[in-house]
Amino acid sequence: METQQKATLQQLAANIRRWILNCTNRAGSGHPTSSLSAVELMVALFFDGHFRYDLDEPRYVNNDRLIFSKGHASPLFYALWCAADAIDEDDLMTYRRFDSVLEGHPTSRFRYTEAATGSLGQGLSIGVGMAMNAKYVDELPYRTYVLLGDSEMAEGSQWEAMEIACQYRLNNLVGVLDVNRLGQRGPTMQGHNLSVYQKRVEAFGWNTIVVPEGHNLCEISAAYEQAKACEDRPTMLIAHTLKGKGVSFLEDQEGWHGKALDDEQLQRALNELEEAPDDLRGALAKPQKVSFPVLSRSQPEEMNYPMGEKEATRTAYGNAITRLGDKYANMVVLDGEVSNSTRAEYFQEQFPERYFEMYIAEQNMVGAALGMALRGKTPFVSTFAAFFSRAFDQIRMCPYSGANIKFVGSHAGTEIGQDGPSQMGLEDIAMFRAVFGSIVLYPSDAVSTEKCVEQMANCSGIAYLRTTRGKLPILYDKDERFPIGGSKVLRQSGEDQVTLVAAGATLHEALAAAEQLEVSGISARVIDLYSVKPLDVETLRTAARETPLLITIEDHFAAGGIGEAVCSVLSEMPIRIHSLCVDVRPRSGTTEQLFEQQGISASKIMEAVKASVTLATHTEK
Amino acid sequence: METQQKATLQQLAANIRRWILNCTNRAGSGHPTSSLSAVELMVALFFDGHFRYDLDEPRYVNNDRLIFSKGHASPLFYALWCAADAIDEDDLMTYRRFDSVLEGHPTSRFRYTEAATGSLGQGLSIGVGMAMNAKYVDELPYRTYVLLGDSEMAEGSQWEAMEIACQYRLNNLVGVLDVNRLGQRGPTMQGHNLSVYQKRVEAFGWNTIVVPEGHNLCEISAAYEQAKACEDRPTMLIAHTLKGKGVSFLEDQEGWHGKALDDEQLQRALNELEEAPDDLRGALAKPQKVSFPVLSRSQPEEMNYPMGEKEATRTAYGNAITRLGDKYANMVVLDGEVSNSTRAEYFQEQFPERYFEMYIAEQNMVGAALGMALRGKTPFVSTFAAFFSRAFDQIRMCPYSGANIKFVGSHAGTEIGQDGPSQMGLEDIAMFRAVFGSIVLYPSDAVSTEKCVEQMANCSGIAYLRTTRGKLPILYDKDERFPIGGSKVLRQSGEDQVTLVAAGATLHEALAAAEQLEVSGISARVIDLYSVKPLDVETLRTAARETPLLITIEDHFAAGGIGEAVCSVLSEMPIRIHSLCVDVRPRSGTTEQLFEQQGISASKIMEAVKASVTLATHTEK
Repeated sequence: METQQKATLQQLAANIRRWILNCTNRAGSGHPTSSLSAVELMVALFFDGHFRYDLDEPRYVNNDRLIFSKGHASPLFYALWCAADAIDEDDLMTYRRFDSVLEGHPTSRFRYTEAATGSLGQGLSIGVGMAMNAKYVDELPYRTYVLLGDSEMAEGSQWEAMEIACQYRLNNLVGVLDVNRLGQRGPTMQGHNLSVYQKRVEAFGWNTIVVPEGHNLCEISAAYEQAKACEDRPTMLIAHTLKGKGVSFLEDQEGWHGKALDDEQLQRALNELEEAPDDLRGALAKPQKVSFPVLSRSQPEEMNYPMGEKEATRTAYGNAITRLGDKYANMVVLDGEVSNSTRAEYFQEQFPERYFEMYIAEQNMVGAALGMALRGKTPFVSTFAAFFSRAFDQIRMCPYSGANIKFVGSHAGTEIGQDGPSQMGLEDIAMFRAVFGSIVLYPSDAVSTEKCVEQMANCSGIAYLRTTRGKLPILYDKDERFPIGGSKVLRQSGEDQVTLVAAGATLHEALAAAEQLEVSGISARVIDLYSVKPLDVETLRTAARETPLLITIEDHFAAGGIGEAVCSVLSEMPIRIHSLCVDVRPRSGTTEQLFEQQGISASKIMEAVKASVTLATHTEK
Repeated sequence: METQQKATLQQLAANIRRWILNCTNRAGSGHPTSSLSAVELMVALFFDGHFRYDLDEPRYVNNDRLIFSKGHASPLFYALWCAADAIDEDDLMTYRRFDSVLEGHPTSRFRYTEAATGSLGQGLSIGVGMAMNAKYVDELPYRTYVLLGDSEMAEGSQWEAMEIACQYRLNNLVGVLDVNRLGQRGPTMQGHNLSVYQKRVEAFGWNTIVVPEGHNLCEISAAYEQAKACEDRPTMLIAHTLKGKGVSFLEDQEGWHGKALDDEQLQRALNELEEAPDDLRGALAKPQKVSFPVLSRSQPEEMNYPMGEKEATRTAYGNAITRLGDKYANMVVLDGEVSNSTRAEYFQEQFPERYFEMYIAEQNMVGAALGMALRGKTPFVSTFAAFFSRAFDQIRMCPYSGANIKFVGSHAGTEIGQDGPSQMGLEDIAMFRAVFGSIVLYPSDAVSTEKCVEQMANCSGIAYLRTTRGKLPILYDKDERFPIGGSKVLRQSGEDQVTLVAAGATLHEALAAAEQLEVSGISARVIDLYSVKPLDVETLRTAARETPLLITIEDHFAAGGIGEAVCSVLSEMPIRIHSLCVDVRPRSGTTEQLFEQQGISASKIMEAVKASVTLATHTEK
């Protein structure tokens, strides 16, 4: 690095430190010391020619990518863009205000945020997804950088990301580990022991570059250069830094995490910083311009499920993604080492270049899918419904990146039988309904499953599809439509005494119950509630007006499930609602035994209806 | 190992193989091949004098512990206890039946199950908790063994457990890694490359012992002996094994995962096994008898919160565990590197020997807490409410171990303000309500928080306490009682036109709204719903009978929250229910701004009441 360049970068660093201290002081909160430790790491990346980025087009396909996994260093993140002249100082001073897009941790409301972070240990997985996209899908030369805190290396998700990055030989991925020794409440497990990090990262198959002086711009810049030369593996820069660097009373001190300076402290701190012109700005390197093919969309073949035959909805899912793979050329499929169960393997056979085996590491799988989504893909991510609980934190964060991801959970409910409760998704509807802005679909046959998959491919945002293990009778003709937010009334008459609302396997129990109830002279309406979120409120309200009793039947726990969802939209209607669901401790057994035990079988539905109808008759008397 | 002993153990192994093949054939499902690979690893442990265990007293404090992290190898697990003469062959043949305690994956219904497993990557953390308990709490010489699959080493939680086991120098913990090369759908990432595992495990600070012949009883037994000699670190046996070992057409073959043999295959397989007497049984070594002190329980001091003053409920939580620490001598506290925020640090100051810093690794924290719970402790586990989502899989599994664990999530809701959505627990009530058999408490002031904490300490099972960041006015006298399943009616009259139901920060908004509504001539009942699960159905029904309108107000998303919980218990009541909750995209801002934005502030509650009351008046006309 030339002397002049070094002097300029040092001045830029000083300005950035000033901005960090000022904006957190104004906000009265934030993490200045965690930002100060990584100033040089980021200044060297941005302003010494490494990071190639078109400020006018943040979503440009061949921009390099930067993810702040340590999202609490947002003051540094925003200050960097200020130093690059992408935002101005006044914007920066709105930090953390309600009317500002500069949130406490970066979200997609700020246009230069590559991915929302703030829950630690998620950024590297997102970077893995972006790097996989570059290397295997878009085949573009952009590079992905992830700034990591040392505290967050305790999260297991980091090591999931490490192992997968190694497996996929992501030489276009660079981690920047800011080893500042201090966590929130005190020292990290490893302190400044860089060699421990190095040993671990190397054991996970990465190239490592130790930067003993993590505030030395020349050393750092040389490390970035060295990283580019590694052609077969991802690289981790492991840098010795000081929390609070640049301010004597903050440097390497405990007790300053997440604390803004007061006015007096701020003045003292500012006085210690090198002087630099207020209006000094740095320039980013430009990305290589690439031609990017417009993907062709061919029409899929028609599906073929003869009415009355049986098929598992998970199989229909596998068929659907395979059938639609050509039409939706942006579709990618990720699976957690259970593709022969979820049927994602069908897609793999047809489109191996767009299928990614993510092994038994669900947190990283979701993070990587998010990375691909943010690079314009439509990821379908599958595992057992139960095991998405492993990645709930990653899933709940997706909306704040504005992401478009589709989750598919197979083997839902007690329906799986003998494998027992560890494998039964019984909380998945509750979990996915609780994700901000989500869609939850739960089809009951192969036709509606395929239609739901296409709906998911067409819509933007976060959607979940619940599939079941066993074969279920085909209920619908291939021309039937299944819009998101709809439902299907499968039986009704003018004399309905009860409405049965169900989805998935229990819908078939409801249909069987309705048939037998008819024999007993009780007329039952049956609604296929394939769209659990959003709900078809109109159809439910009509049923509530027309029948005095409504029974929901679901292979899921009560809390957050279909019953509660239905109750909440009918709370103003004068109808009795009875929820049948999984409410005794689930166990191994046959599907029939378990449905009977949980009171969600056809015979138990009949009992419930008869008890309630009798009760109603008695009450009327 | 003597020749005679070796011959006997080999015969025991042959019998175990026979039982594995037979019981899965009878069940028509299960994982025989995953069981066969670890037969020798477990036979050498059990029957060559290493594992010390009193069969008559499975919960004996000084028994060695064995956790099958690869829970799908349950046929082997059950067969081992059969070989030890703890259960008989007829029991074994009930495997996976509805009327059997031998479930598809081990649960607490089987008396020799140390911890329920089946969701992969959880067992090592549980073992960490048991080993921590032995070394630091009970100070007992028992050793903890964890059988691990190679596929599940892809789970990040394993590496969380590894790093913490190293940090706490758990020389009483032994991992047994069954490297059989094959996962569910094909080869693992590392195949039979033992040196990769060794390098990684060593990099995480463990002692490693490679066992190149993982079916050689002498080699394995020597490895267990060697593990005992390591005094400063945990030990991992890394064994080269073959999936399906012992049956020529299964050995090291793909396509056999999770498949039981049919009758013809079974016969062929059985013919290949060494003959052995049917009634051959092995003996376990006895545990050392220890005297175990009865812990004294002293009465805690009284709390002191003057009515009308303010305190954060998280602070009251910290005060409560510290005040009650002497009375509940089994209480242990674990925190995820945020103890200065959750206030768990108060307990640490008073009882450092019962406090465990678990760093930013929530999955392992919950697993370790489960391990301690299963060794008779009452763990209180704390982090931000949002970050428990990281450990949802571990949490949902707790009931199947019959565990007694208390979770405490601080910084719940938009109330935290400027830090933004990544730090806001907005799905935590939904998540914890969805856990089988759980209790969910959400107090609104310091007094009720302390009372809730004592209720949690007194009850058995899984309970969650939600605390908030900011200070809230003291509402209750120290003698007020807060039973689980109760509620408090804070305002009521004979002319109530509306009932406001809230908890936590929004209860204070509801109280403020009620006060101002009174000025406008509208009388509002206010219910403090501190027990969110179970609900005080009686009080809610009374309100539903006595007021025509009920409004729930919560700092949480709609799905699975308080509104839905209340709707579901009032579904048969003729009352209009209106739910105010977080329903626009949350962001950074002040608490006041965010409550206003989300419609859960006092003024927005008033607006909602007035609109509804006006609406009702109009409708009546």
